[in-house]
Amino acid sequence: MLERNLTLLTDLYELTMMQGYFKEKDHDKVVVFDVFYRANPCNNGYAIAAGLDQVIEYIKGLHFSYEAVDYLRSLHIFDEDFLHYLSGYHFSGDIYAIPEGSVIFPREPLIKVVAPIMEAQLVETAILNIVNHQSLIATKTARIVYAANDGGIMEFGLRRAQGPDAGLYGARAAMIGGCVGTSNVLAGQMFHVPVMGTHAHSWIMSFPDEYQAFKAYARMYPDSCTLLVDTYDTLKSGVPNAIRIFREMREEGIRSKSFGIRLDSGDLAYLSKKARKMLDDAGFPDAKISASNDLDEYLIHDLKQQGAAIDVWGVGTHLITSKDCPSFGGVYKLAAIQDENGVFVPKIKLSENTEKITNPGNKTIYRIYEKETGKIKADLICFADETFDENDDLLLFDPIETWKKTRMKGGTYTMREMLVPVFINGECVYHSPSVMEIAEYCRQEKDTLWDETKRLFYPHNVYVDLSDRLYQVKKELLDQMSMDNL
Amino acid sequence: MLERNLTLLTDLYELTMMQGYFKEKDHDKVVVFDVFYRANPCNNGYAIAAGLDQVIEYIKGLHFSYEAVDYLRSLHIFDEDFLHYLSGYHFSGDIYAIPEGSVIFPREPLIKVVAPIMEAQLVETAILNIVNHQSLIATKTARIVYAANDGGIMEFGLRRAQGPDAGLYGARAAMIGGCVGTSNVLAGQMFHVPVMGTHAHSWIMSFPDEYQAFKAYARMYPDSCTLLVDTYDTLKSGVPNAIRIFREMREEGIRSKSFGIRLDSGDLAYLSKKARKMLDDAGFPDAKISASNDLDEYLIHDLKQQGAAIDVWGVGTHLITSKDCPSFGGVYKLAAIQDENGVFVPKIKLSENTEKITNPGNKTIYRIYEKETGKIKADLICFADETFDENDDLLLFDPIETWKKTRMKGGTYTMREMLVPVFINGECVYHSPSVMEIAEYCRQEKDTLWDETKRLFYPHNVYVDLSDRLYQVKKELLDQMSMDNL
Repeated sequence: MLERNLTLLTDLYELTMMQGYFKEKDHDKVVVFDVFYRANPCNNGYAIAAGLDQVIEYIKGLHFSYEAVDYLRSLHIFDEDFLHYLSGYHFSGDIYAIPEGSVIFPREPLIKVVAPIMEAQLVETAILNIVNHQSLIATKTARIVYAANDGGIMEFGLRRAQGPDAGLYGARAAMIGGCVGTSNVLAGQMFHVPVMGTHAHSWIMSFPDEYQAFKAYARMYPDSCTLLVDTYDTLKSGVPNAIRIFREMREEGIRSKSFGIRLDSGDLAYLSKKARKMLDDAGFPDAKISASNDLDEYLIHDLKQQGAAIDVWGVGTHLITSKDCPSFGGVYKLAAIQDENGVFVPKIKLSENTEKITNPGNKTIYRIYEKETGKIKADLICFADETFDENDDLLLFDPIETWKKTRMKGGTYTMREMLVPVFINGECVYHSPSVMEIAEYCRQEKDTLWDETKRLFYPHNVYVDLSDRLYQVKKELLDQMSMDNL
Repeated sequence: MLERNLTLLTDLYELTMMQGYFKEKDHDKVVVFDVFYRANPCNNGYAIAAGLDQVIEYIKGLHFSYEAVDYLRSLHIFDEDFLHYLSGYHFSGDIYAIPEGSVIFPREPLIKVVAPIMEAQLVETAILNIVNHQSLIATKTARIVYAANDGGIMEFGLRRAQGPDAGLYGARAAMIGGCVGTSNVLAGQMFHVPVMGTHAHSWIMSFPDEYQAFKAYARMYPDSCTLLVDTYDTLKSGVPNAIRIFREMREEGIRSKSFGIRLDSGDLAYLSKKARKMLDDAGFPDAKISASNDLDEYLIHDLKQQGAAIDVWGVGTHLITSKDCPSFGGVYKLAAIQDENGVFVPKIKLSENTEKITNPGNKTIYRIYEKETGKIKADLICFADETFDENDDLLLFDPIETWKKTRMKGGTYTMREMLVPVFINGECVYHSPSVMEIAEYCRQEKDTLWDETKRLFYPHNVYVDLSDRLYQVKKELLDQMSMDNL
C-alpha cells in the first residue's frame, strides 16, 4: 500500500474491544473469524475474489508507531499497560484465503483468520475494506467484459473514483476482472499492467482547428493513432478530418500498428455505424472504432444488439465505482473459540433475518467439479478436519431448503480445497502472482462456470452446501439458542 | 496524502498530450481550465465543496521521480527530451478555488487553474479524483444530517468504503458535511476529529453470556457505556441485560457521562420505541438509544416520521459510498487560451447536449445574498475582470430560459467573490482551516440556503446566472461555431 502505515485504519471499537480482552486476561484465546458475503453484487451469478495481495502487505506492515500510541493515549480511554502492549503488537496468527481471481459464491469463507482474539479483532476493518473494494470492482468488470463479448474493455475511471486508492486498486481489480488496459499511469507502474489513452477535447481545442490538432497528434504517435472525433461535429467534421489524416499517412507510407477514431458523445450505435461506413468507403476497414461516454454492461449489451460498430470500449464511472451497486457486503464474523484443550468450539450469531445467521466452526471449502466438463457443480463448506474421498458417492443438499438434494457418483467428480495458507504463525507463506497472472487465472476460473451462471440477467446460482456434520452442529446450536430465549 | 508521490496518478493521455504540447513548442502558452459539475448528486438542491486541502498537498508534492521517468521511458512512446523536461517539472501556475465547506451549485467553476498548458493538463485527473470524491461524500452527509434533524450522525463506513483512501478522506468529508464523529481511528489521528465506537457482536459472543459481556464492558468504560443489545434477542435478552447493568452501576454509585444501548438489526422503529419504554420504566430516561443497520437519509426520515426513539444514528455503507449516487460528475474543461498579447481568448466546447456546452473565458463567481435575510439569491458567473457596485441595480437572467429575469435593487443585496487564490505563480498562498473549522463554516454555509433548497425531495434550485457580457460572448462563439459546421 505504497509504504503507508495503515495500522490505525480500523474502527475505534476494535481497539476498545482489544483493551477489553487485554483486561479480561484473554490475550491468548485463539479464535476463528470468517470473511464472507451474503449476496453477489449487481445480481451477478458469482463474484471474483480480489485484494489479497494488499491484505498481505497490510498484515506485514502492522505495527503501532510511537505517534499512533501517543494519539491513542490522547483519547483518554486506554490504559498505559494496554498501550504498552500495543507498542509491541504484531500479528502472530494464521490466515487462509481463496486465491485472487477465483470465482466465489455467497456464504463461503473467503478469508479465515485464526489468531489470538486481540490480534484477530484489530484486523477486521482493514481486511474488509480492502477485500470488499477490490472484489466489487473485479466482479463489476467481469460483467462489463462479458457484455462486450469479443470487444476489449479499457478502464478509464480514475477521475470519478472515490479517492486515489479507489482509482489505483480499482484499476488493479479491473485488470483482474478482465480489462485489457487502464488509463491510470500509476497503476501501470505499480502493477505492470498495460496503460492506454490518446488525447482529450482540450487537445483539439488548443489548436486553430480540428485538422491541425489531428495532424500534430498523428505526426507524434503514428504507431497508435486514435483520433477523438466529437469535439465539434462527429460526422461532419471529426470523421472526415480523421479520414483526411489517415489518407495522408498512407500517402506518406506510414503504416500504423493501430489507428482509428474515438466517439465520446451522441448516440454511439448510430454514430459508430455511420462512421464505420465512412471509414470503409474511404478504404480504411482496419481503422478501429473505440467508444466511451457513461457506458455500463447494460448499455454495451444493448449497443451490441443494435449492431454498433464498436471495437473497443472505454468504461469509466460505472466500472470504477460499480455505480449500480457500489459496495460489496463482506463481513467478518466470529466462528469458533479454542477451549483450554485446543478444541475449536463453534460459535453462532443469531439474527431475525435467516440469511444473517452465521455458519459456526473452524471450516474450509471444497469446490466440486464435474469430471466430464470441468464445470463447478457446487461448493461444500465443512469443518477443516473433515476428509472426503473422490471415489465415494457425495450427497449434497441445500442448507435451507434441505429437500433439494443431489447425489454425485464416486469417480464422476473432483474436489479442490479453495482456502490456501497465507500466513502461518504470523509468517507469510504465500507468494502472490503478478496482476497479469491473476487476470489469466481469473479468465480460466470463469471457464469453470456454466453459461447459465455467467449471464447478466437472472443467472443460475451455484449451490453452496454444508457438509452433513456442519449442518448438524449448526442445527443443534440454533435449537439450543432458541430454547435459551424462550 | 500521507507523503505519497501521486505524480503518476493521472491518465496516460495527459502525458501523451503534454509531449504533444512540448513538441509543438507550446510549453508556455497559458490557459484557463475550469473544474465544474453539471448536476447535484442525489437530486439535492446544492453540493458541498470538499477536498481542496488534499489538492494543495498533491500540487505541492508534484515531481517526477527517477523511477517515474524510468517507468515512462519503458513505455516507448516518450522521447528523451520530453522525459528530461518531466524530470524538472513543477507546477508554476495559479489556482483559485471555492473554499472547502462552501455550498456550491452546478455549472460554476469550483476550481480554476491558470497555468502553462502542459502543467495545467497533467493535474486534471488527480484534481478531479480528489474533489469529486470528497464533495460527493460531504454532500451525501449533509442530506443524512438534514434527515436526522436534531440527531447526531456517526460515520461508520470504513469497512465498506472503496479502499483505504475512500474510508479516510470519506470520513474527512463526512465530518465537513456534518457528522458528529467517525469510527475511523486513522481519520481521527490525521484530521483531529472525534472518534466513536463501542463493541461488536463478537465481543458479546466471546463471553459465556450476554450479561457477562455487558458487565465486563461497563466495568471498563463506565463513562461512555453503549451496550449492543441485538446479538441474541433484543427485547427478551439484550435490553433487560442492559437495564440490569445500568441498575448495578447506579447501585455502585457510578454516574456515567453517557450510557445507553445500540440497536443493529430488526425494525428500528418498533424496537426503539419498545426499548425506550423499557428504559424509561426502569428509571433510565437519560439512557441514549443509538441505531445502525443500512441507514440512509430516506430511512432515517421515515423512522423519525414513525416516532422512532433514536437519539444517535450510525451510518455506514450508504454514506461512505454515497450508495444511490456514487460519483460526483466534476469535469475539467478548457475555458481560455492566452494570446501573444496576454489576452485570454475564450474557448468553448460544443455538444449535442445543451447542458454539456461549456462557459468560455477567464471567469469568476459572485454570490449574491439578500441583505435582509442573508440568504443566497443567486450566483453570478462573469469574466474575472468584471466589476460590480452593490449600490447599482442588478439584472439577473437565466442563461438558457433568458426570459426568466429578476432585478435586484441597489442596496438590497451584497456580493461575495467565491473563488479565492490558492496558488500564485506556483506558490501556495492559502492556509486550509482545520477540518472542524471547515465543518463549522459548512454549518454556517447551509444557513445561507433557503429551506426550499435544503429539503430532501424536489428542492428548489438556486439560480446560477451569467453576466450580460459573458452571455453575449458565449452566444457569439456558439453562432460562429455552428456556422462553421453548416
